[in-house]
Amino acid sequence: MNQRLTKLQAWMKENGIDVSFISSSENVFYLSGFFSNPHERLLGLAVFQEEEPFLVCPGMEVHDVKKSGWNHEIIGYSDIENPWELVHTSIKKRNIGVRYVAIEKEHMNVERYEQLTALFPSAAFASAEEKMRKLRMIKDAKELKVIEEACALADYAIEVGCSEIKEGRTELDVLNAVEYALKKKGVTEMSFSTMVLTGANAASPHGNPGATKIQKGDLVLFDLGVVVDRYCSDITRTVAYGDINDKQKEIYDTVLKGQLAAIEASRPGATAAEVDLTARRIISDAGYGEYFPHRLGHGLGISVHEYPSMTETNQLVIEEGMVYTIEPGIYVPDVAGVRIEDDVFITAEGAKVLTKFPKELQIIK
Amino acid sequence: MNQRLTKLQAWMKENGIDVSFISSSENVFYLSGFFSNPHERLLGLAVFQEEEPFLVCPGMEVHDVKKSGWNHEIIGYSDIENPWELVHTSIKKRNIGVRYVAIEKEHMNVERYEQLTALFPSAAFASAEEKMRKLRMIKDAKELKVIEEACALADYAIEVGCSEIKEGRTELDVLNAVEYALKKKGVTEMSFSTMVLTGANAASPHGNPGATKIQKGDLVLFDLGVVVDRYCSDITRTVAYGDINDKQKEIYDTVLKGQLAAIEASRPGATAAEVDLTARRIISDAGYGEYFPHRLGHGLGISVHEYPSMTETNQLVIEEGMVYTIEPGIYVPDVAGVRIEDDVFITAEGAKVLTKFPKELQIIK
Repeated sequence: MNQRLTKLQAWMKENGIDVSFISSSENVFYLSGFFSNPHERLLGLAVFQEEEPFLVCPGMEVHDVKKSGWNHEIIGYSDIENPWELVHTSIKKRNIGVRYVAIEKEHMNVERYEQLTALFPSAAFASAEEKMRKLRMIKDAKELKVIEEACALADYAIEVGCSEIKEGRTELDVLNAVEYALKKKGVTEMSFSTMVLTGANAASPHGNPGATKIQKGDLVLFDLGVVVDRYCSDITRTVAYGDINDKQKEIYDTVLKGQLAAIEASRPGATAAEVDLTARRIISDAGYGEYFPHRLGHGLGISVHEYPSMTETNQLVIEEGMVYTIEPGIYVPDVAGVRIEDDVFITAEGAKVLTKFPKELQIIK
Repeated sequence: MNQRLTKLQAWMKENGIDVSFISSSENVFYLSGFFSNPHERLLGLAVFQEEEPFLVCPGMEVHDVKKSGWNHEIIGYSDIENPWELVHTSIKKRNIGVRYVAIEKEHMNVERYEQLTALFPSAAFASAEEKMRKLRMIKDAKELKVIEEACALADYAIEVGCSEIKEGRTELDVLNAVEYALKKKGVTEMSFSTMVLTGANAASPHGNPGATKIQKGDLVLFDLGVVVDRYCSDITRTVAYGDINDKQKEIYDTVLKGQLAAIEASRPGATAAEVDLTARRIISDAGYGEYFPHRLGHGLGISVHEYPSMTETNQLVIEEGMVYTIEPGIYVPDVAGVRIEDDVFITAEGAKVLTKFPKELQIIK
């Protein structure tokens, strides 16, 4: 039994949960090592307090499950079988009482829930999601290694982006060139829709890249991430095209000062709120508080947004092994939009910064 | 009240449904004209037999809802409000009994379902999905126009793809060039992951584009689609790079013959099964039946896979206004993989083919 499953089982014992039925692709992958997006078909992992877990998946994927290293029971079903009946049979054969079942309530749909409640009509249902989020929040060495690779590719993407800023180029031109360069490096998935925003667009928190030409004197904001072996990176850099004015520089310097202070404040024992407020106070004291309308950052891993949530009210204590973004921003309409974002890994000594593209203001001539 | 809402209301009256609560982005868009992907936030459309419908969405989207042309009630909520309470209040004020509620059971998650059942503890819940699928199956003139634009861009993509097949190029090289050309035309979304498959890869139904170099004597299979104003196109063409052998030609000719016959058989009054079997029999009679392992096609519109499902057992009667794909294929391992796919619109006279890239075997020198 792998450590992740053992931890889930410990939680089940504490809470009297007889079965956890995990159904999201991300959490099945986290616990089993097998990833699949089965679309409308059922994928699930059943975990018990003591008995052997099993994985249920479309029959044509059984071979891939074995290859992934999963060495417990596998239930493959054909398109003419009802997978719920197979699940029921397999649980029955374990000879345990099924009174309390943990499911992913934000993932499982009503149609499946009705099937499950029909099979176990006297069971009560708890949510497994909070526990899964907490397990995934602490990364192990293998996860860190993959995230570091994803971060290195994000750095490369910013480098390409900067080299593509030229007279007459639009936001979309630069964006396309960046993604094309990444595809040539073997990248097949971005963490989210890549953002290349300039001028007024960058100064709006909801800008979308378009046919706007990049002008001298503009700030250009890149926000992007790369997926490597299912793990995400997430970086933001804001660079200048030609000379920018003093107000733009002041905003840039303020964001950077806040960002560096939040990295410094990121260490085991601090709270998420303290880290957020470290940057927020610097930005507020400089008179830009109202122009920093979002949280400081978010955890990342298999999902691009996961725990911890770095907000000014979250009293969660930072621990070794967490990975999260630090991304303060200031958006003053018609003046400037600046955000600077790094991904950090928490060690006993403090934050290790995983994204490494320079943060001194880059001026592209 | 728009016609789509009126049709849903007629169904509700027939079935004694007091409220339909529609929650998927696609169906909310179809019924209201407003599209949003609210992620973890609640988006919903409540429809009643007689009373005014309302749309519930995050507060920051209210402005966009109005702009989209929705001229009924809008409930915007802030991040500190519970949207379900607002929904409850708004339904209560309509003064109707809530005994039977239609929801999207495959879309709504258990967490939301628990909120809804807590608000209406004595209500029973039906599925709205089958009805929504049937409504969306028949396209109006406005929808057809948008799908035609999406098909024209799909044709263009194949044209670009063919021009990019050259000595030393890999599948991914060609794929990237195609998507880059589309982005320059303003395309921001593909219907699904673009496929460029060659040689042995094309002969496997589960191939993925990779670093395989395209070789003289190979068939190259393109499968792609473009999204325009939220509607999808979907095209497949298989072309030859240099001269191909007689077996490959025979397979190509067989697929084309089946495809053309299925287009001819597509007319109001025929069943989906008859159309599928028209192509399937031609392929079987030529000795390739076991190498055509999938259905003939699928409806398309806001989703790339919707009704009708063109299978050999579906007795659904074809009607004017349907849009679906006709895409027979033959995949003989180590010999050839060929699929030819068009999107068709059903008129009183028969199928109008919307994808127009030539289907005589294209030989690229």
